[in-house]
Amino acid sequence: MVFGKTVPDISLNAVANLGYAEGRWLAPIFTGDTLQAVSEVIGLKENTNGKTGIVYLRTRGVNQHGDSVLEFVRWAMLRKRQISSPAPQAVLPELDGAIDPADLSVPEGLDFSNYAFDLAGEPYRLSAYERGEVIDHVDAITIEEAEHMMATRLWQNTAKVHFDVTSRADGKRLIYGGHVISLARALSFNGLANAQMIVALNSGAHANPCFAGDTISAWSEVLDIAQTRVPGIGAMRLRLVAQKNQAGPGPLRGEDQRYLPHILLDLDYWALIPS
Amino acid sequence: MVFGKTVPDISLNAVANLGYAEGRWLAPIFTGDTLQAVSEVIGLKENTNGKTGIVYLRTRGVNQHGDSVLEFVRWAMLRKRQISSPAPQAVLPELDGAIDPADLSVPEGLDFSNYAFDLAGEPYRLSAYERGEVIDHVDAITIEEAEHMMATRLWQNTAKVHFDVTSRADGKRLIYGGHVISLARALSFNGLANAQMIVALNSGAHANPCFAGDTISAWSEVLDIAQTRVPGIGAMRLRLVAQKNQAGPGPLRGEDQRYLPHILLDLDYWALIPS
Amino acid sequence: MVFGKTVPDISLNAVANLGYAEGRWLAPIFTGDTLQAVSEVIGLKENTNGKTGIVYLRTRGVNQHGDSVLEFVRWAMLRKRQISSPAPQAVLPELDGAIDPADLSVPEGLDFSNYAFDLAGEPYRLSAYERGEVIDHVDAITIEEAEHMMATRLWQNTAKVHFDVTSRADGKRLIYGGHVISLARALSFNGLANAQMIVALNSGAHANPCFAGDTISAWSEVLDIAQTRVPGIGAMRLRLVAQKNQAGPGPLRGEDQRYLPHILLDLDYWALIPS
Repeated sequence: MVFGKTVPDISLNAVANLGYAEGRWLAPIFTGDTLQAVSEVIGLKENTNGKTGIVYLRTRGVNQHGDSVLEFVRWAMLRKRQISSPAPQAVLPELDGAIDPADLSVPEGLDFSNYAFDLAGEPYRLSAYERGEVIDHVDAITIEEAEHMMATRLWQNTAKVHFDVTSRADGKRLIYGGHVISLARALSFNGLANAQMIVALNSGAHANPCFAGDTISAWSEVLDIAQTRVPGIGAMRLRLVAQKNQAGPGPLRGEDQRYLPHILLDLDYWALIPS
Repeated sequence: MVFGKTVPDISLNAVANLGYAEGRWLAPIFTGDTLQAVSEVIGLKENTNGKTGIVYLRTRGVNQHGDSVLEFVRWAMLRKRQISSPAPQAVLPELDGAIDPADLSVPEGLDFSNYAFDLAGEPYRLSAYERGEVIDHVDAITIEEAEHMMATRLWQNTAKVHFDVTSRADGKRLIYGGHVISLARALSFNGLANAQMIVALNSGAHANPCFAGDTISAWSEVLDIAQTRVPGIGAMRLRLVAQKNQAGPGPLRGEDQRYLPHILLDLDYWALIPS
Repeated sequence: MVFGKTVPDISLNAVANLGYAEGRWLAPIFTGDTLQAVSEVIGLKENTNGKTGIVYLRTRGVNQHGDSVLEFVRWAMLRKRQISSPAPQAVLPELDGAIDPADLSVPEGLDFSNYAFDLAGEPYRLSAYERGEVIDHVDAITIEEAEHMMATRLWQNTAKVHFDVTSRADGKRLIYGGHVISLARALSFNGLANAQMIVALNSGAHANPCFAGDTISAWSEVLDIAQTRVPGIGAMRLRLVAQKNQAGPGPLRGEDQRYLPHILLDLDYWALIPS
């Protein structure tokens, strides 16, 4: 929702959303909470074509008590208001490659000491996973127009390319990247059932566009394993990859270092899991 | 919901729903309320073909405390039960052209004195609009089958033309006019973000049928501007037009005074806005 | 939900779900309840092909207080883990043909003495129906992909044939049988508006597959009429048939005793109705 709420201010008319970094979930939210999103421009750089530029923003989600519930950095390619304007001085923010596990915010009161592995569906705790391990989540979902539009409205993302078939030259609706993230996270239950809670987003890229009719599958790579400050609560750093119309894990990029055309999402996050 | 609840009694087998008038929202409703709809026939007239007629009804929505929450008049073309029956005496109700702004029901406790224009998304209060002004709401939505059916079920409208492709000769599902109203009202946020609350429906017509695949856009015309009895709360009378597969405002009717084929909805309502 | 929750344990990889029996709703559930499903294998039999077998299970749904809210028996065709394994000894459970009306569980506090027939939509109480009577529910619904997938997710059924077009050779998504049951029960309102509450499932079969684009209609046959132990509360045993692309009641089976290809569902249940 906080991501979606930034659309009118930032990306309604964006050429492309390029990436995410330094995302941290700081406090739980509850039914009935009122959330606001506040964004600050922390960097910008004109592209060499003189027509577009990259804008970096830090967004903070705040609840009705004024508590920060979420923070993240994103960057997007925007059109210049006036092409004839001089290029602004380039300001590039320094961004962390990944959140340090010591900085992860474990929700107060979270306690895995009576965790019911049999009800969760899988017996795997942190010690069952190894750095470098690749997990094929096996299942897949073929997306239809009506459902991705309804999901996108729930997130309050109003960007017209998701709803109006006349807004792209090819007459297709672009599927909201947040819907792809959500489907990939849901698919990842199969193999990561106990990775209960996402607490940080190290980086994220929407690698290629997704359209109705695409069949989405997902796989994960274990990038790191750590303990949090709370006994019994471990953390896994995971790369979550969503892809279209292709089964099973494989390379992300071609020889030119660009994402292969079937790769939709390359997401790097920390999740909490019983240790 | 009150509109939808009248379907089994009135329009399940109607040939066409023709219009609305004298609609007033009288009291707010809340989660958990139980609503009933009661309709009274206030007029009828046989058509010259002797097979159908126009029936006028006044419907009242009542909550569990017996308070009226909504009133409106509608008329629809129905088939005669027996074509051989003599024509009933024609009774045509006298209907107001528009609700007098002095009769608008401002919900008790509504107070715009601390209205947060920056959070609402637009800075425009009543004084920013002028009679005769036309507002293009710019955005558009292409409708799909599954979503319009689900919306129609939520409103408890059970008319078979919305769900069963065998009920029309062309094999298409007719999209519920209430869904078009809802989409047009949602689109109108862009330009009328502070027109917070609809309090009266002066008139309304479903001008042409709408089908899945149609791209819906909307524009508004400011018909009148008024103050309510409550300080700080103004009222705007707006014409809201929904159209299909065509961008931007334009004429509603052709030289024969009929609605042009791309016009879906012509709705005349009063909304409250900070003055 | 309890039905859907059994999917990961039982039918995710099933060849076919074959039938239901001895289903009883034992206690009402409320918003906020937490339900668990526990299943016990009560019979199994290898098929003559040596590759598959029939497994019979009794599933019990339990709420957070440990009360049973639902019990039923189902059987499904599953693949053998190892084809070379010897056939297990066949165990066939003895199943009742129909629940005795004296064993129906009437929810505590249920009282039809002030039942408002005018608000319910139909005037028919138990005495208005006769054994052998056939009721055409008239209405029909044409199913689309997006909505059946969303309904299936709500029931927490994760079987891949419902979501992934690559999981069947014909590239179609199979529509969840529970969605067909739900649509048929909703359609049956027209003619059975006062059959308020399903309390037992005597038997049920998904006779043929259903796909998006199919137009579903339904009809019912009154199999039995009984009084419960509670004064004023009667029970009707009903056969509910859902069919595709065909209007009105007709034979269920061909000369070979197999279900005709347009029959989707053959469900035998008890419902409570004012007597």
